Amino acid sequence: MKLGLFGYGNIGRGVYKVAQNLDISYDCVIKKVFDLPIKKDELKDKLVTNIDDIINDPEIGAVVEVLGGHDLPYEVITRCLKAGKSVVTANKEVVSMHLEEFINLAHLNNCSFCFEASAGGGIPVLRPLIDNIKVNEVNNIFGILNGTTNYILTKMDEEDLSFDEALKLAQQNGFAEANPTADLEGLDIVRKINIISSIAFKGNINNNDIYHYGITNVTKEILNHIKELGYVLKFVASSKRIENDVIIRVEPTIVRPNHPFATIKDEFNAILFNGSTNGDLLFYGKGAGPLPTATAIISDVISILENRSYIHFKNERKLIVNKNIKNEYKYYIVDEFNNGKFIDSPDDSTLLSAKFYARVLD
Amino acid sequence: MKLGLFGYGNIGRGVYKVAQNLDISYDCVIKKVFDLPIKKDELKDKLVTNIDDIINDPEIGAVVEVLGGHDLPYEVITRCLKAGKSVVTANKEVVSMHLEEFINLAHLNNCSFCFEASAGGGIPVLRPLIDNIKVNEVNNIFGILNGTTNYILTKMDEEDLSFDEALKLAQQNGFAEANPTADLEGLDIVRKINIISSIAFKGNINNNDIYHYGITNVTKEILNHIKELGYVLKFVASSKRIENDVIIRVEPTIVRPNHPFATIKDEFNAILFNGSTNGDLLFYGKGAGPLPTATAIISDVISILENRSYIHFKNERKLIVNKNIKNEYKYYIVDEFNNGKFIDSPDDSTLLSAKFYARVLD
Repeated sequence: MKLGLFGYGNIGRGVYKVAQNLDISYDCVIKKVFDLPIKKDELKDKLVTNIDDIINDPEIGAVVEVLGGHDLPYEVITRCLKAGKSVVTANKEVVSMHLEEFINLAHLNNCSFCFEASAGGGIPVLRPLIDNIKVNEVNNIFGILNGTTNYILTKMDEEDLSFDEALKLAQQNGFAEANPTADLEGLDIVRKINIISSIAFKGNINNNDIYHYGITNVTKEILNHIKELGYVLKFVASSKRIENDVIIRVEPTIVRPNHPFATIKDEFNAILFNGSTNGDLLFYGKGAGPLPTATAIISDVISILENRSYIHFKNERKLIVNKNIKNEYKYYIVDEFNNGKFIDSPDDSTLLSAKFYARVLD
Repeated sequence: MKLGLFGYGNIGRGVYKVAQNLDISYDCVIKKVFDLPIKKDELKDKLVTNIDDIINDPEIGAVVEVLGGHDLPYEVITRCLKAGKSVVTANKEVVSMHLEEFINLAHLNNCSFCFEASAGGGIPVLRPLIDNIKVNEVNNIFGILNGTTNYILTKMDEEDLSFDEALKLAQQNGFAEANPTADLEGLDIVRKINIISSIAFKGNINNNDIYHYGITNVTKEILNHIKELGYVLKFVASSKRIENDVIIRVEPTIVRPNHPFATIKDEFNAILFNGSTNGDLLFYGKGAGPLPTATAIISDVISILENRSYIHFKNERKLIVNKNIKNEYKYYIVDEFNNGKFIDSPDDSTLLSAKFYARVLD
């Protein structure tokens, strides 16, 4: 099969590299790569600078979209699917917003839409989850879903760095973008927990309905308080379904050192499910980076080559994100005088008036 | 599709229960169950007491084998595959011994052989691994693969029980069999690490070639030594490939409290892979128990119903289990006077003359 690749940045280069090492029996070749003219030296004749050159090429059976952003990827994905080309993407923004539309387009046009890399990066979590929920009803999800912020919290804790020092280190090591706001405020995590929850709970969720509170207020002092109390600070997404109600939040969270999340360090991610027949299931691995992400993308490509890619995502439930529900969790709240205390079931206004807060996950 | 079920013990009952809750759209029914006449009251007309009643029934398209043991399961599996019936099994003994034969028989007879539940119980690990290794070359595997022994070590540590007290508690709670030898000596783990390694490394391994040392010599005193040194004791399988050489061992192992394995408690299992493109990947969940195991089995059944079950296991490499290789690991060795010390790269005779030893996994 001939592939088209949209985007030749860090991830695109990883995809190109991993695809070249694919077993020859798959007979799978990247025929064209869409990017800016500046990539001509690297890509030579493979470069195209007009998306139509891939979309209208009848020889190309599947495309990989790793452009980033929303508008162009949305156009590329919908037009490719309508042209009967299978699509593999790592784009959490478009997947979290348009998953149902993409799946329906793929069904209508007898092709596939695959998005393993869009949540959990290199961790093979979505496909096992899609398989698993046919038997096991999942009602509770916890995730450490952002490598940048987990790296920052790890370095603050282990190397006694300030927030700014740890952020700078993350940027120097390629774990944080020049503009890290989407990571630090939890927007990146919002999209990922949305994708995972939509699949696990079989219904659509709007990104805007997901409560999120970032980690920019974390100080060394606060981290030391938390350590003295016997906890470890993590940036955790949680999602819980009760009938059609969903409580879904992204917020700093403290866990005991013997909680599996306490050992998830640096740029690693983890996703923990609790289900009816399986009990706890946890997946852990590199949530970002060109090679892990490319591995997930090429795994999706292989599933297309082997005709195993059909995804039975059904939007079966009318889910309601319950934002006003009384918060049933326990929180650790730091006031303006740097005094920390535990409070059961605080309302959101109490949380937001705090200098810093973290949910307690015992 | 009509199913046949071989075996109606704890796991068989779990399979029966989970299958009954399957989405009606699958149109999947257990038509006959093979077991002893004593199950007649429970199973009524579904019971058959002759395996031929299932094998020769042309209406039955797939079977689930949860008999336990070797000879009868081997006969059932090979005859069903030859009759063109797909087979799903949780039987680690037969799978670890005959995997290549079963896969070849399935290919020859245009049906499927699925064995997700045979290693890792309820953890969906084999299918993601089979997908993953098409891209990611795995060279290192670590596993906590036995719920009984992990439960015993957890209880000894957390509730200060002796080995015998913890074993008794495991038996009372249904986590250990009346004859726990295969668990305690590591034979059960040998089979599971064999299945996982064979798939990850793409070659056959003989159970008899796998070095194993059990946990029966663990005492409260030794556990306390280990705790004072800042470690946690686990029963770990490790498997490492260098070219065609494999070093594969099952032995007590001590890990730092911040190692992911330190948080794997009670009857939970975990499998950690290190691969070329993905870095570390870890899967964690319930390794045993009727419902988790049945979940894995029914997931396999669904993959057959959805025509996604074809497993590309290729015995590509002539693997050599290198048993005489100089051990490159560090060990904690307790001598006859209860003195513990660390030794780098001891030979196996040094290990076996110790009162107790544990590998050090830093």
